[in-house]
Amino acid sequence: MLNLIIADTSLETIPDNLYRHPSLRKLRHSGKKPSDILLDRSFHHFAMVSTGLENHHKRGRPDILHIALINALATPLYRNNMMKVFIHTVNNNVICVGDNVRIPKSYIRFEGLMINLLKTKKIISDEGRLLLELRSQTNFKRLIKEIVKSDIVVGLSTTGVYRKLESIAIDLSSQNNPCVVIGGFPNGYFSDSVDSCFDKKYSISSVGLESQVVVSRLVYEYEKNVLA
Amino acid sequence: MLNLIIADTSLETIPDNLYRHPSLRKLRHSGKKPSDILLDRSFHHFAMVSTGLENHHKRGRPDILHIALINALATPLYRNNMMKVFIHTVNNNVICVGDNVRIPKSYIRFEGLMINLLKTKKIISDEGRLLLELRSQTNFKRLIKEIVKSDIVVGLSTTGVYRKLESIAIDLSSQNNPCVVIGGFPNGYFSDSVDSCFDKKYSISSVGLESQVVVSRLVYEYEKNVLA
Repeated sequence: MLNLIIADTSLETIPDNLYRHPSLRKLRHSGKKPSDILLDRSFHHFAMVSTGLENHHKRGRPDILHIALINALATPLYRNNMMKVFIHTVNNNVICVGDNVRIPKSYIRFEGLMINLLKTKKIISDEGRLLLELRSQTNFKRLIKEIVKSDIVVGLSTTGVYRKLESIAIDLSSQNNPCVVIGGFPNGYFSDSVDSCFDKKYSISSVGLESQVVVSRLVYEYEKNVLA
Repeated sequence: MLNLIIADTSLETIPDNLYRHPSLRKLRHSGKKPSDILLDRSFHHFAMVSTGLENHHKRGRPDILHIALINALATPLYRNNMMKVFIHTVNNNVICVGDNVRIPKSYIRFEGLMINLLKTKKIISDEGRLLLELRSQTNFKRLIKEIVKSDIVVGLSTTGVYRKLESIAIDLSSQNNPCVVIGGFPNGYFSDSVDSCFDKKYSISSVGLESQVVVSRLVYEYEKNVLA
């Protein structure tokens, strides 16, 4: 079983002080509460920058998580229950994705689902299956030690040692409960608290690759070793 | 140079008769014109079905195109100007994607861009570069014969002959101007007018794969033959 973590990604509703920013007057007039709106740089960039929002270059990009997740959950590996998927956010929320979960491709439906998850902490299917579970105040180290409990944690980052993805995938597939970590942020590097948990850190390309490209290629290469 | 066509996909504004459907009263009251709204099954499903919209199972899914395109344009192959990307829609619009184009990951920004493209037929960068060009009333055959002009057209479909993707990619990379066609629809098969243009038709998996999975894997395998 492969464990895939999309780490240091952003998924949060709009912080209260941001909501009161003059540039978001129209939003307030729409009658939506802050807890009904995902923080999104496409719309809240000015407010994010001018209120000096901490760590703002990594925040407000739920689209990155959405597309990486769509790619991960559509793979035969996941569909065959041979991969567990976890999401770790920059504000230390962890989301455990259940088996056979389908995330809506429609962003607007995805947004609604995530807002619901942030409020209720759990998304349960009509048949009572746990689809998504949010564990708040769970930092990356706790995710690894208490939830994933993997033998080896491999981070993929441009700051790692160059190694061919095929070779990394072979290595991972020879482990009992391997874990691979992919960044879910627009640019920059893993936070120190994530980076310090890696047993190995590899770079798979001379240029930075977007999260969904890394997810797709990694899972595909891994599948070659474990699926006929 | 690889030519990639995302075919039989859906990208259109809401048809006039649908706009008048009772279920879309709220939409009309918002003051938006039909030409300002992409047809989207997430919101217009009931109106699509109850007005008997032709070919409706393939329409109203701009999210599929968005995610497939995001995956294609983020690949090193495209970024290195070694792949041309074309979009063919079920209502015979063709979109030619220029070089070094970045499509917004944010769906709401993508939607705005596409509505603009459908209105103005061209998206031009601030420096005057043609990013996206819409050619209306261009069927798939004309796209192949007059625009792509490729030596060989390979379709990927569950109805094709099974062949390993690695082997297909090697074959494609040995051609001068190969073209590969991927379906951009939710389920079902290519339309006859697309299917009849294939020189070869291959299946790469025993189960149906979503468009973005096929795009990612195909481009990755092709890259292995042409990028160091």
